[in-house]
Amino acid sequence: MNAATTLPREVALLERLAGGFSRSALQCNQRHESDAELIRLPGSPSVLALTTDAISEEIESGLYSDPYCIGWMTVLVNASDLAAVGAAPVGILLNQTLPSDMPEQELEALQGGVRDACSACGLPVLGGDTNFGARLHMGACAVGLIPDGQPLTRRGATSGDRVFASGPLGLGGAFAFARMMQPDADPPAFRPTPRLAEGQLVRRYATCCMDTSDGAISTLDELSRLNGVGFTLGALDGILHPAALTAARTARLPPWFMLAGPHGEFELLFTVPEPAVAAFRAEARGLGWEPKEIGVVSPGPETSISVSGRSVRLDTRAVRDAFADAGGDTRAYLARLFGLNAGPGP
Amino acid sequence: MNAATTLPREVALLERLAGGFSRSALQCNQRHESDAELIRLPGSPSVLALTTDAISEEIESGLYSDPYCIGWMTVLVNASDLAAVGAAPVGILLNQTLPSDMPEQELEALQGGVRDACSACGLPVLGGDTNFGARLHMGACAVGLIPDGQPLTRRGATSGDRVFASGPLGLGGAFAFARMMQPDADPPAFRPTPRLAEGQLVRRYATCCMDTSDGAISTLDELSRLNGVGFTLGALDGILHPAALTAARTARLPPWFMLAGPHGEFELLFTVPEPAVAAFRAEARGLGWEPKEIGVVSPGPETSISVSGRSVRLDTRAVRDAFADAGGDTRAYLARLFGLNAGPGP
Repeated sequence: MNAATTLPREVALLERLAGGFSRSALQCNQRHESDAELIRLPGSPSVLALTTDAISEEIESGLYSDPYCIGWMTVLVNASDLAAVGAAPVGILLNQTLPSDMPEQELEALQGGVRDACSACGLPVLGGDTNFGARLHMGACAVGLIPDGQPLTRRGATSGDRVFASGPLGLGGAFAFARMMQPDADPPAFRPTPRLAEGQLVRRYATCCMDTSDGAISTLDELSRLNGVGFTLGALDGILHPAALTAARTARLPPWFMLAGPHGEFELLFTVPEPAVAAFRAEARGLGWEPKEIGVVSPGPETSISVSGRSVRLDTRAVRDAFADAGGDTRAYLARLFGLNAGPGP
Repeated sequence: MNAATTLPREVALLERLAGGFSRSALQCNQRHESDAELIRLPGSPSVLALTTDAISEEIESGLYSDPYCIGWMTVLVNASDLAAVGAAPVGILLNQTLPSDMPEQELEALQGGVRDACSACGLPVLGGDTNFGARLHMGACAVGLIPDGQPLTRRGATSGDRVFASGPLGLGGAFAFARMMQPDADPPAFRPTPRLAEGQLVRRYATCCMDTSDGAISTLDELSRLNGVGFTLGALDGILHPAALTAARTARLPPWFMLAGPHGEFELLFTVPEPAVAAFRAEARGLGWEPKEIGVVSPGPETSISVSGRSVRLDTRAVRDAFADAGGDTRAYLARLFGLNAGPGP
């Protein structure tokens, strides 16, 4: 068994694909150690933040089908990576492949979603590339700046730090569950909030940060792996978005399934040293924002969560790999989660 | 008739799509006025150059099918835009959607093409986004820096400036003609040379520059439109790549068809004031590079080329729009070019 087999599935695959590529001496971050790429600008104290993300799998699987939602998410997924490194937004480049026969009304809704998200994120459109083809493909590249050159990465958490989320969690999971498993039901409303202003504040207080784009448990697993720590989380009911709790109860699923991913709600998960918590909270209130304290960083590698007053262990790695291990089949995936629920899990 | 109908087809469409998007006060260039987006960095004299380009249409149409070529071109098309603004390369982000069933050997050839082009361009891989889906999709976002903040754009040519190409032209057309019209013949070898070092030199001498990614005649048409000038080009035989001349003769096509696009050879087309030509040539020799002087900027809007000692007018706009006007059908497109050849054309 070589070392790569101990990596999460998708990290191992990406490492193999990127293995032969040369790296830049200007780059501050190692691969996978921050949500956006961090490039020191020669002759300037600033660090450039760059990220690129397409939502092709979400379109192809049918998870996103509403054109306005596709437009909004094309921008939001990239903005979320800038937020997680605490960058100020500079702008965005769009990569669009539009079907030649796309109805005018859908095209307008798509562009409307892009436009509204850009405006909500403070990301002007700098340019892009528009192609025409058989299938809709949407992606973007977002650019941000960290003027003082001190970015926030996924590394830096230590035992005792308080764990925060920028908002309630589980809505991404509830939305995906409804879309993929209950095609006749109305999914919960899903339009993630841009967290760029919050990210810039978080950067001045947090020891590490990552967004929940792949689901909160994946995020916890990655932060645990990179920092060699665990997490002791508070009551599940207080962590979950009310719509996620309702969705779980209606479907008779254990509520923690809504955090299991692989589709998240694009909130920020971050850690703040205990002595800085009061000052951080005060500044957050100044933004009209109430970050949610959800737990504490523990020294061990294990993560636990409080369910009905009982602390139960979450095997974050097994949960994170479950979708890939199920070959992407949603029913097989649920069966795996039930297996983890019956075992040492909550 | 409104003003938009006087724009080239693809410019008019892109203007309509981008019309509702907000712009950045930091952006130096207007839309379509430079090959890469130019962003002034706050607190620094530098200008950032950003570009993003996918090669989905080339893959979907079958123009590019060799995986190594697809990898090479994914990087090269983006590097070429950095070259055309005279930026120093910083790095590149890759956007890949890989078919889950892609044979290992093809995946390795694809990544090999990316790796070799990055190395040839001096563009380290900063990061990217890898998805898995039904069809191969490749794109990238390249980043460059203009340390003194003086970028090269498509605007600035004046009558009397000398017109240069970074290399012989028409190979992109010859390759596309062979691939799309002669499926049983071997296409000419096609692996465009990165022009980043040349672009940085050109920036110090040229009044305007644009790459020939969409074919040389499209480039001339765009530079003519943006600068309100025309071009008097020298002998066609001296402008064309030998393989393009051979391809035209073998297929009994007028040789200028090889410049008609819409697939070009990714050379730089630029204009240098006459008094600066000697110094420019001397510095180019220092790079081991021999730029090709192909004509002179004229005051009028018309472009002409010398064919067998006779100056003949090229209707660059009609040639540029011919592929779109033919609905992308290659035989109808050739028929249109023959129509332009019989008329006032060469």
